[in-house]
Amino acid sequence: MTQDPLYRPTDVRMKGFARRWTVQNCLDWIDEHIPESKTEKVDLQEAYGRVLGTGITSEVDVPHFSRAMMDGFAVVGEDTSGASTYNSLTLDILGQSLPGNPFHASITSGQAIRIMTGAPMPAGANAVLPVEQTVIQEKSILVQGEVAPGKHVGLPGEDIQAGKQVLPQGRKLRPQDLGILSSIGIRLVEVIKQPQVRLVITGDELLPPGTTPDQYKIADANSPMLSALVHRDGGQVLHPGIISDHPESILAALQSDADVIVVSGGSSVGQEDHAPRLLAEHGSLDIHGVAMRPSSPSGMGTLGKRLVFLLPGNPVSCLCAYDFFAGRAIRQLAGLPTTWPHRTINLPLSRKLVSTVGRTDYARVHVHNDQVEPIAISGASVLSSTTRASGFVIIPEDLEGYARNSEVTVYLYE
Amino acid sequence: MTQDPLYRPTDVRMKGFARRWTVQNCLDWIDEHIPESKTEKVDLQEAYGRVLGTGITSEVDVPHFSRAMMDGFAVVGEDTSGASTYNSLTLDILGQSLPGNPFHASITSGQAIRIMTGAPMPAGANAVLPVEQTVIQEKSILVQGEVAPGKHVGLPGEDIQAGKQVLPQGRKLRPQDLGILSSIGIRLVEVIKQPQVRLVITGDELLPPGTTPDQYKIADANSPMLSALVHRDGGQVLHPGIISDHPESILAALQSDADVIVVSGGSSVGQEDHAPRLLAEHGSLDIHGVAMRPSSPSGMGTLGKRLVFLLPGNPVSCLCAYDFFAGRAIRQLAGLPTTWPHRTINLPLSRKLVSTVGRTDYARVHVHNDQVEPIAISGASVLSSTTRASGFVIIPEDLEGYARNSEVTVYLYE
Repeated sequence: MTQDPLYRPTDVRMKGFARRWTVQNCLDWIDEHIPESKTEKVDLQEAYGRVLGTGITSEVDVPHFSRAMMDGFAVVGEDTSGASTYNSLTLDILGQSLPGNPFHASITSGQAIRIMTGAPMPAGANAVLPVEQTVIQEKSILVQGEVAPGKHVGLPGEDIQAGKQVLPQGRKLRPQDLGILSSIGIRLVEVIKQPQVRLVITGDELLPPGTTPDQYKIADANSPMLSALVHRDGGQVLHPGIISDHPESILAALQSDADVIVVSGGSSVGQEDHAPRLLAEHGSLDIHGVAMRPSSPSGMGTLGKRLVFLLPGNPVSCLCAYDFFAGRAIRQLAGLPTTWPHRTINLPLSRKLVSTVGRTDYARVHVHNDQVEPIAISGASVLSSTTRASGFVIIPEDLEGYARNSEVTVYLYE
Repeated sequence: MTQDPLYRPTDVRMKGFARRWTVQNCLDWIDEHIPESKTEKVDLQEAYGRVLGTGITSEVDVPHFSRAMMDGFAVVGEDTSGASTYNSLTLDILGQSLPGNPFHASITSGQAIRIMTGAPMPAGANAVLPVEQTVIQEKSILVQGEVAPGKHVGLPGEDIQAGKQVLPQGRKLRPQDLGILSSIGIRLVEVIKQPQVRLVITGDELLPPGTTPDQYKIADANSPMLSALVHRDGGQVLHPGIISDHPESILAALQSDADVIVVSGGSSVGQEDHAPRLLAEHGSLDIHGVAMRPSSPSGMGTLGKRLVFLLPGNPVSCLCAYDFFAGRAIRQLAGLPTTWPHRTINLPLSRKLVSTVGRTDYARVHVHNDQVEPIAISGASVLSSTTRASGFVIIPEDLEGYARNSEVTVYLYE
């Protein structure tokens, strides 16, 4: 919009929100609107941290052969009965079994096979005599201890049995899970598809991220921040660039291909706040205006199958509204828990933290000397308040705040 | 090595370790041998989770102009003195200021400029009168409330002041940190270079990851697991494939270009355990044999500038030795804390956990009903014990274990 010195009040909707929704209304709306997740197959090497789309059942025993659990000699356990350093018994060495390179014949009483940990047990042997209990001679060993049949032998299926479920659906894959999948012969893993999240960054005052501020233009701080948050929450970011504050550009962006649309800026009820009106006209603006601070000018709705989140452009509000709303949706679509991913600690407040009944507050705090210090807030536009802070405390809407020394839960930024 | 049925005892070094180092010896060795980290510049969009190589000082004020913190009218605050709903005062509307699109002239007493949150304050104005305190007429407003000079105005440098440090060296970058860097005009960020970690996976019994077990061959479970662990710890994985159990191939791998070499398999004192001998011959094998369970056949040393970690091939031992030793080194090289990245909880044991004085134990446990249940361990080869487990408990070498109901710290797998 070009500047119009002839100011016409009828063009302007500078009123406040007609009503405000509670944070709980918003969370309920989100949980009701999450579509079923899709799955895709990815290579084992790409699967760390992804979420299993199906339970995994092994089709094989691991190990699939009997194997030695010690370095020593594969023997017939009964042969060692009564052996000790005072009563050595002799066994003939027939050969050796190495991992991947077994002894192919079988042995009988009176015979032994040198064997290494992990190597296949030869047929006929039923125990491994540790090397420490032997004296090795030219072609035989002196047995100086007893091993019971079965001792130091790993049986087929000892680690994983064929037909058993090894990992449940919904598991966020850990390093060792990849080891297990590998060992049962799974190279392609069915995981939940990462939701495609389109960032719609609006604002004619914005320069591309990392640009030095110039005249009355400022660098877009929200897209690098939101990209990292979406990444953290298991989504894939689509962000072709800053969108100009024109209804046509914003509508085109809202209609782009994505599972979730995250709009930053122009989310309120002012004359330049196009996105809420466009969403209401072309889709459904189900919630607009939330009883919280910061981030009250937030909204959400749907456009086709897309979930659309309208976040304020002020960076602290943007961060807060993302964590409360968009992040919750993205985590669910990615198969992750709805709960915040932040680590938490419980500590007493060094001074009181004031809020207002009927409004949820997101207060940045500093943790120092095992106490929680509220950070003096100079507004939702001071992003550095979130980089100086250790984390945040939530004051629910039914409280006027927390008294000094109250124990509160701090969600740690990281 | 080919199978040799004529077993010659002189070829074989099947003895145990001459001595065992304590875990603390190993940690001290690692901390003494970490070289200084290198730095590199990465794009802001790639910087999430990376560690700052230098402190960041802003060269600009943010914001770099006075801006409105509310939607309303930019006014001379003194003009509103005494205004109320019972005593409306009139101001002329001269124009408007939008974000990125300011009002370029100045105003004086008796005049007002319609202004939006974030828009530049016009010269002459010193306060923003919220729209709720006005009645808007054709070309003027009725002022129905007072605003003091400075009210609802964000001053230059309010968020960030030029010359001030905004983020310290060593900071692991958070989503909002990227926002701050963007807003002060930093597009390329100097971060600590990710250590290059070469995986040397040895074992003639091994098939590539995710291969169905076949005859006496098993799939390599360790490289997918180790790759994920290195990724978690901020390293970059180099893994060209499985190395055959020949001294020449292993030596070539040990001498490859990397900051850290992680060898899996052949780490003990058996005849097929080439890596320790090669490391001793061509570099320095400083530690070999550790008083811990599992993972006692672990070792570490240097070859040129490379840190070399010898991990047992048994997957549980491999995981444990990685977390204790290689991971600590990689995290430090990546600029991350030496401490384990796992979340922890403290809970009582449901039954006693037995160990032996003089040895550090890594016990897999299950957390259930707010109690810690030790998992019956069938050996270091049973990787599924780590996927069934919620996490692990460390029993230090000076304890015989923990009694039932003792509170222990569980490091949660994730």
